[in-house]
Amino acid sequence: MTATSETTATPDQAVIYEKIAIIGVGLIGASTALAARRGKLVGHVTACDADPDAVETSRKLGFADEVVGDAKEAVVDADLVIMAVPVGAMGALAELIVPAMKPGAVLTDTGSTKRSVLRDVDPVISDDIHWLPSHPLAGTEHSGPTAGHAHLFDGRYWIVVPRDVPDDVVVRFESFLTGLGSVTERMDADYHDKVLALTSHLPHLIAYTIVSTAVDLETQLKNDVIRFSASGFRDFTRIAASDPVMWRDVFVNNDEAVLEMLQRFSEDLSYLQRAIRWGEKDKLETLFTRTREIRRSIIDAGQD
Amino acid sequence: MTATSETTATPDQAVIYEKIAIIGVGLIGASTALAARRGKLVGHVTACDADPDAVETSRKLGFADEVVGDAKEAVVDADLVIMAVPVGAMGALAELIVPAMKPGAVLTDTGSTKRSVLRDVDPVISDDIHWLPSHPLAGTEHSGPTAGHAHLFDGRYWIVVPRDVPDDVVVRFESFLTGLGSVTERMDADYHDKVLALTSHLPHLIAYTIVSTAVDLETQLKNDVIRFSASGFRDFTRIAASDPVMWRDVFVNNDEAVLEMLQRFSEDLSYLQRAIRWGEKDKLETLFTRTREIRRSIIDAGQD
Repeated sequence: MTATSETTATPDQAVIYEKIAIIGVGLIGASTALAARRGKLVGHVTACDADPDAVETSRKLGFADEVVGDAKEAVVDADLVIMAVPVGAMGALAELIVPAMKPGAVLTDTGSTKRSVLRDVDPVISDDIHWLPSHPLAGTEHSGPTAGHAHLFDGRYWIVVPRDVPDDVVVRFESFLTGLGSVTERMDADYHDKVLALTSHLPHLIAYTIVSTAVDLETQLKNDVIRFSASGFRDFTRIAASDPVMWRDVFVNNDEAVLEMLQRFSEDLSYLQRAIRWGEKDKLETLFTRTREIRRSIIDAGQD
Repeated sequence: MTATSETTATPDQAVIYEKIAIIGVGLIGASTALAARRGKLVGHVTACDADPDAVETSRKLGFADEVVGDAKEAVVDADLVIMAVPVGAMGALAELIVPAMKPGAVLTDTGSTKRSVLRDVDPVISDDIHWLPSHPLAGTEHSGPTAGHAHLFDGRYWIVVPRDVPDDVVVRFESFLTGLGSVTERMDADYHDKVLALTSHLPHLIAYTIVSTAVDLETQLKNDVIRFSASGFRDFTRIAASDPVMWRDVFVNNDEAVLEMLQRFSEDLSYLQRAIRWGEKDKLETLFTRTREIRRSIIDAGQD
């Protein structure tokens, strides 16, 4: 009976990748390392960042087995390489590391735009590695390695964009993502960029805009806007505190879908503006009642 | 020593108003009743609503000593009358109840706009009552009497707009508001409406707009926007689920300040739109870095 108890004790889960390399130790990179360790998904984590300060901070935080400054060195022997840098930097990074990767290894990224990443990375991919773009729908307004959190991905979607990659490679990668705590979903790049333009990029753009409007107010009014910010504005400042370089890259790399959604938004805003100017109460009430339904759908979908 | 212990036991705080009447048992009205009881600030609470369902629900919830349907009946003998109805309904309500109020009583309101409430209520005020407009900067996306919460006002600002009212009347009212848990602040109506236009009204208008944009998407895309809403859009849907009638009234009654702020916002949005279209990364990064500072100011101001 004792023997049986021992053998039925939960065994350590088999690692999914023996060695992984994470390039870029911002919020997403550091959180991936922490979550992978928490889930015992990997044997060895190499983290890498071009910024010496980030390297030093990451070594102190100790979320990786080693932290290096050279990306080519980081990826040698890695079974999975994760590019967690701003989308504008993906192309140059891939060009640098792909030749140093071992045959059969998987390369992924965590970029918020997918069409531009494909455009920039596809041309430098070699036949002997598996290029499997992805995007975790997770984040906070905090950035840098100290913002890392082992539970960041719990219950959050992680989109995978498989193309010409053997299914067992995709399935293994998805089991890694599930082990990080996330829920996987396959999507093509065009559709991803359209959905994200409205769910993420446009809300960020609008939040940046309204906070920017406040920045330009005269001092007294600006101070009072800050002081009385709890009435709605505060939520926007949280979003508008997100990483400037990451978001700069998102907008110029998903410009087509963002500009299309922005056009629709501007038309809808003009409609409301006109209704306010002319005191058309019925139009306002009808529209505000319709938007309430969307909130109910989100609660029903368990996304609240 | 025993006698001393007894006399130094905390005495019940003296009530601030013997009788109060709350007209309108939505989120704010119900929460005011609950917080007043919690703080032992009043001897008797009469609640009132024109909607028979709200009256019945409020009776079941039991947050007031009595709940009636007739506003004139509710205000007789009240030392403080609180009008907690949509701002578009304040004028007609005041016209109805002021003649029934007892001399020396205080009349206040909780409306989100102050210039329009003064415009509508001032003409019907009689010399023997004290008219002291106010506005609690508190709320949630939930509405109706069941949304009431005894701690809704804890640490939140409650703006008071005193004009031609004896200072001791204002101070007593402010001690009542402090007893509810709030922090009081005096302000004039014009300035209030300007500050709120940016901190509250414009954010709500924008949230309503972006959710409205989503409503009009084709079905598949709309469903996926709901499904992947956690990336930013979800925060907007929460704001856009607020009470339609209350907000309809806010926009048409603070149209001047809202349209001015909206004009500034639209200019700033066009600037960003152009920067995205032309791939002007420097402009975007500079602006996103500036907006981050505002977030820091809010955290420094303890408004986070």
